[in-house]
Amino acid sequence: MNTLIKTIEVIGIITFAVTGIVEARKKGMDLVGVYSLAMITAFGGGTLRDFILGRHPLFWTAHYWYPVILLGLSVLSSIVIKDMLNRSGFVTFVLVLDALGLGSFSASGTSLANQLGYHPFVTALMGVVTGVFGGVLRDIAGNEIPYVFQRTEIYATCAFIGSWAYLATMWATSNDVVSVIACIAVTFILRMLAIRYKIRLPL
Amino acid sequence: MNTLIKTIEVIGIITFAVTGIVEARKKGMDLVGVYSLAMITAFGGGTLRDFILGRHPLFWTAHYWYPVILLGLSVLSSIVIKDMLNRSGFVTFVLVLDALGLGSFSASGTSLANQLGYHPFVTALMGVVTGVFGGVLRDIAGNEIPYVFQRTEIYATCAFIGSWAYLATMWATSNDVVSVIACIAVTFILRMLAIRYKIRLPL
Amino acid sequence: MNTLIKTIEVIGIITFAVTGIVEARKKGMDLVGVYSLAMITAFGGGTLRDFILGRHPLFWTAHYWYPVILLGLSVLSSIVIKDMLNRSGFVTFVLVLDALGLGSFSASGTSLANQLGYHPFVTALMGVVTGVFGGVLRDIAGNEIPYVFQRTEIYATCAFIGSWAYLATMWATSNDVVSVIACIAVTFILRMLAIRYKIRLPL
Repeated sequence: MNTLIKTIEVIGIITFAVTGIVEARKKGMDLVGVYSLAMITAFGGGTLRDFILGRHPLFWTAHYWYPVILLGLSVLSSIVIKDMLNRSGFVTFVLVLDALGLGSFSASGTSLANQLGYHPFVTALMGVVTGVFGGVLRDIAGNEIPYVFQRTEIYATCAFIGSWAYLATMWATSNDVVSVIACIAVTFILRMLAIRYKIRLPL
Repeated sequence: MNTLIKTIEVIGIITFAVTGIVEARKKGMDLVGVYSLAMITAFGGGTLRDFILGRHPLFWTAHYWYPVILLGLSVLSSIVIKDMLNRSGFVTFVLVLDALGLGSFSASGTSLANQLGYHPFVTALMGVVTGVFGGVLRDIAGNEIPYVFQRTEIYATCAFIGSWAYLATMWATSNDVVSVIACIAVTFILRMLAIRYKIRLPL
Repeated sequence: MNTLIKTIEVIGIITFAVTGIVEARKKGMDLVGVYSLAMITAFGGGTLRDFILGRHPLFWTAHYWYPVILLGLSVLSSIVIKDMLNRSGFVTFVLVLDALGLGSFSASGTSLANQLGYHPFVTALMGVVTGVFGGVLRDIAGNEIPYVFQRTEIYATCAFIGSWAYLATMWATSNDVVSVIACIAVTFILRMLAIRYKIRLPL
């Protein structure tokens, strides 16, 4: 179970970091900016979750190879990213990975808040914060209005429904691993459908 | 006393959320953006205060109906807000409510820091942070220079003087409830005077 | 040793506050904005470090004369800063002071994380966060893309190498004071060379 949650975290971290790196490269930032946006996007949501829940040490300071991997990824990206961005399939690939990261981060936030005994609504919000706020902080640091606040294909909403899928599965099975997988699956599928059919919120 | 502080919090939360909702609607955000700005504006100052003072659980995670109310308010706003914004009295109404929220949030921050034994100057700053930083974070998330940093009618200054009014009343009476009311009254009256007579800082 | 670290902190705080004040004055902010940017720039990095490391009370709430000094500095600046900005030597003077502040803040962050037993890589990152994030938050609050993320003369990189100089010296001498001085010296000299020879990152 512990192994599963760590694997989930690594997938989420790398995919989110890539979106931060792409954003930083678009803005013409140097390695410091690229690494910073990679870190902010990948660790921002989980850090805010840990601040809110009062957890110490923070997950990325306890696992020092996480920030080391992101530094390697940031250096590597400066060599290969121009090629990547020109390939038409890359943006789609990032969107798919990002949806997986969204699901895995939301699952970890929901699971942790649930274990700490928070109310289900607050627990679901913690899932959304963990999944979404890395991207929000990336956009704020890049001097943009956060993408997820705008009227585009649903994103945070997928994480919110995914978090409730975790809670419902947990209520039915009392099995954290199964509930985490349910959260990731629901979030991922909803996000893919949202992109495919341009689903937006009516309000 | 506990009831009073909670009532104060609810008034502040709803009024601040409304200013976040108005800002989000102006920027054409969808429900996620509206709810996020409502949450950031209403809970941002108190969250930063709790982070700085090391208080856990955060006030809005312990009272799950606070974020539930804001979700209801956000949904409701998408139906009624266009009508509201067109009414000339609505902006004035929001300004009055906002001044009340500023006073009540500053009072809660000052009261908590004072109980924890911080130095009066730091205590007064905590009052200002609690009252003002929700709006600062709302403006940052909306990609604006924070309104309160600009040369307009005094706002943070009202909260700062209100916090000292709390401290002075507390020193004279040792009564938290009376001091909270003094803080709210001083902050509110100063802010109303500032708007009415366009009082700005000379520096 | 304790005296040295406090002296270092005061130098860093004042120099960073000045860069915040200059930024706020450039944007036409009033005293509230000036004081807020002074506080954010001077205390932002250390506050984020304390949040991440879970340290309480925050250094600037425990030393109430720090924010009092910054208020005095902010008031004073409104009288003298226009004269200062027109003198050609002032910008250079600020750059030199800022490099010293960068070194001293990075040293304090590295020293604290090292004492708490964090991994050297995370410790070095804590040095960079402490040294650099005050400026990052200042730029975000001023609605700019953070200066240090852009392709300019190396800044965060100096702090990162300086932090490793601390760790190397600590490993060799086990003396915190000597290691702090090594960190400040390496960071300061690198930053001065970077400005003089326009050293940028190749990536």
